[in-house]
Amino acid sequence: MTNVLIPPTAETTVPPAVKSTTPHRVVIVGGGFGGLYAAQALGRSPVEVTLIDRRNFHLFQPLLYQVATGGLSPGDIASPLRAVLKRQKNTKVLLGDVVDVDTERQEVHLKRGQTVPYDSLIVATGGAHHYFGNDHWEEFAPSIKTIEDALEVRRRIFLAFEAAEKETDPEKRAALMTFVVVGGGPTGVELAGALADLAYSTLKRDFRNIDTHETKIMLVEGMDRILPPFPPELSAHAAASLEKAGVEIRTQTMVTSIERDRAVLKTGDQEDVILTKTILWAAGVKASGMGKILADKTGAQCDRGGRVIVEPDLSIPNHPNIFVVGDLAHYAHQDDGRPLPGVAPVAMQEGKYVAQLIQARIADKALPKFQYKDSGSLAVIGRNAAVVNLNWVKFTGFPAWVIWLIVHIFYLIEFDNKLVVMTQWMWGYFTRNQGSRLITGHDVDRVEEVYTQH
Amino acid sequence: MTNVLIPPTAETTVPPAVKSTTPHRVVIVGGGFGGLYAAQALGRSPVEVTLIDRRNFHLFQPLLYQVATGGLSPGDIASPLRAVLKRQKNTKVLLGDVVDVDTERQEVHLKRGQTVPYDSLIVATGGAHHYFGNDHWEEFAPSIKTIEDALEVRRRIFLAFEAAEKETDPEKRAALMTFVVVGGGPTGVELAGALADLAYSTLKRDFRNIDTHETKIMLVEGMDRILPPFPPELSAHAAASLEKAGVEIRTQTMVTSIERDRAVLKTGDQEDVILTKTILWAAGVKASGMGKILADKTGAQCDRGGRVIVEPDLSIPNHPNIFVVGDLAHYAHQDDGRPLPGVAPVAMQEGKYVAQLIQARIADKALPKFQYKDSGSLAVIGRNAAVVNLNWVKFTGFPAWVIWLIVHIFYLIEFDNKLVVMTQWMWGYFTRNQGSRLITGHDVDRVEEVYTQH
Repeated sequence: MTNVLIPPTAETTVPPAVKSTTPHRVVIVGGGFGGLYAAQALGRSPVEVTLIDRRNFHLFQPLLYQVATGGLSPGDIASPLRAVLKRQKNTKVLLGDVVDVDTERQEVHLKRGQTVPYDSLIVATGGAHHYFGNDHWEEFAPSIKTIEDALEVRRRIFLAFEAAEKETDPEKRAALMTFVVVGGGPTGVELAGALADLAYSTLKRDFRNIDTHETKIMLVEGMDRILPPFPPELSAHAAASLEKAGVEIRTQTMVTSIERDRAVLKTGDQEDVILTKTILWAAGVKASGMGKILADKTGAQCDRGGRVIVEPDLSIPNHPNIFVVGDLAHYAHQDDGRPLPGVAPVAMQEGKYVAQLIQARIADKALPKFQYKDSGSLAVIGRNAAVVNLNWVKFTGFPAWVIWLIVHIFYLIEFDNKLVVMTQWMWGYFTRNQGSRLITGHDVDRVEEVYTQH
Repeated sequence: MTNVLIPPTAETTVPPAVKSTTPHRVVIVGGGFGGLYAAQALGRSPVEVTLIDRRNFHLFQPLLYQVATGGLSPGDIASPLRAVLKRQKNTKVLLGDVVDVDTERQEVHLKRGQTVPYDSLIVATGGAHHYFGNDHWEEFAPSIKTIEDALEVRRRIFLAFEAAEKETDPEKRAALMTFVVVGGGPTGVELAGALADLAYSTLKRDFRNIDTHETKIMLVEGMDRILPPFPPELSAHAAASLEKAGVEIRTQTMVTSIERDRAVLKTGDQEDVILTKTILWAAGVKASGMGKILADKTGAQCDRGGRVIVEPDLSIPNHPNIFVVGDLAHYAHQDDGRPLPGVAPVAMQEGKYVAQLIQARIADKALPKFQYKDSGSLAVIGRNAAVVNLNWVKFTGFPAWVIWLIVHIFYLIEFDNKLVVMTQWMWGYFTRNQGSRLITGHDVDRVEEVYTQH
């Protein structure tokens, strides 16, 4: 990115506030991977850290699809932020919703009027799902970004099977047992794989009137192959594994319409109407609303997805003490200029880098610009199968699945969770059982209505 | 109970349908301890079992207070009914809400019009909470009967601490850190003990502005001692342990008023206004609505709590093929004529007995009337302490806690849950940590409003 992108503003540049007598105040907005890793990297610095989040926990999003498909409980993949940071005496956690930033007075504003002053600000509020202008699709095709989303999707999946068990009309029963996953990226692939496991093995003996082997699972991708960011041979391997598991893959296919009981898919000139009660959206991510607030207040540019285009040190142009990290940041890759992908390792490395930069500034040192170290990517396809690209070597099948498992358990923040999740998983692995497939929530009845209306 | 209680009805007695050519159809309403144990005891009988529940899981209610206080996840104490019963080929599970019973045609009616015919009917729909005519208290003093209740209470407890951390007014902060538990039975004692653990050990390093040792926990009981069903020396021991843990106990005390920000307690002639934002109700249980439906349709009598007064074989007078078990049944104890308590062992034994009775009838055999075998009672007071009364021997302190733990883990239905819960617990025991204290739900913001309105 070049400076032409930066419009002239009346605002004066706020210099980084270093070497004051009171400790340097770092405010971090968002306790996801970016924000939490920044906070942890500042744990032993002579700074005052305030981490603000709307929720009281850090969520390990890469495993959220497991909550949605009944393999894990919310508590297994979330850790209370206070517990994670309790040993960091320089760090406060604040439950709050940031609604504005005052760059002049250097403070953030919370929903109920509270203000929090900062010397350095790190914004890491991540992304939300994106329906590409079809927001009305969300009602019938939910996506999975929060615990509540995952539990809602879980309700829908299991209520669909429950309704199918009661349904006597074969056509309606087939529609109830048809699941469409939109988006062939890692989330869509993992979701489709988990659905196949669920339908074809976990639930196979649970019902008396339906045969869960008749479940139809479709994975829809607009590009010419699933897992587009992976090397083509891994995409091919993943597609073969999914198809062997029973998933029907439609590439070069767009969704043109979503309604309560159907999805319309378009491949080339051909349109197919799929009768289904359960459509899951794994197709698009856009930046959270903080992107717009920052752009308004600092004159920063956003890309089409609403992500803030940042400087090579992850700061906002002309605001060297305001940083954006993680899914909310548009950072051009050092080699090809394309934005870094919205994945956990990018957010973690960006969070750590900004923490180091703030520490360097306080110590009056310089730091080279941020460089993303890409150590590879992973996607799991189901029980025993995954694809792993470590750049220098690729894995598929069971070895890839083991690597995937180790990496994910390693990065689960708190050890007590790791132990429990590992036990749960190993047990689930041997018994093919999933204990967490509860249908919960005050609105069960409302959702059930949807599945029983004809 | 004598026959004078039974009003004359026009209805003819339906004889037990035995020795037909088609299998005897047993319909069980409710998948709690009573219903599930009945279903399991019928697993190898030549009968057709249909288990109907509004929820798709069996809930291990004795540990629900642990979900409310963040020690366990919902998935740890709930097992999908289909999974528990999947090996029983003669058993169907139906997700549905029973709204009526037609005793003439021998069928139950579900909410959306479906009917299910029965030859024998077992009703085990349990109880709901009971505010003794003060239903408006429920909004400010929730009780814990369902997973959703437990998560709501969890939200309130943790949001109270979060709000206290932000509060600057000392009086308001003290109110936020005051918890009142109404009811000194096992549930109230366990809840108060868990709150003390939470405030005085688990959370002690989590906050920066508040000292969680200043948390005030009050346990209110109308009788002259807590745990009234236990022997007096165990009550005294439990009271001493709770007080040592930091809980203030008020016996012979009634709640006379509950509002958004206060509870009024009356001890003798003295009234105390307790400023608090978090009141938890563990005082009363009444029968579920099925009691009234059964009484209307069969002429059966209900007691003051709405429980159906049953015959010595747990059937409804004049309806030998309709049985009521568990918390919905009023069964007079063989020795003193008082109703059996609403606890899990009673429900389990009743469920099993009815299953055996149905089997005996099919085989043209007689069965003596139901006899409750009381093997004792347990209540846990917190980490390391419990009271156990096995009738022939009593335990307190750590040995009692170990017995409590073993009994509870033994009765958790599914083994995968047992393994996970045991790991979680042992880990929590050594680390004094609780990973499940997430504030979740779509209405978090609404609840937060309550805690931040002054």
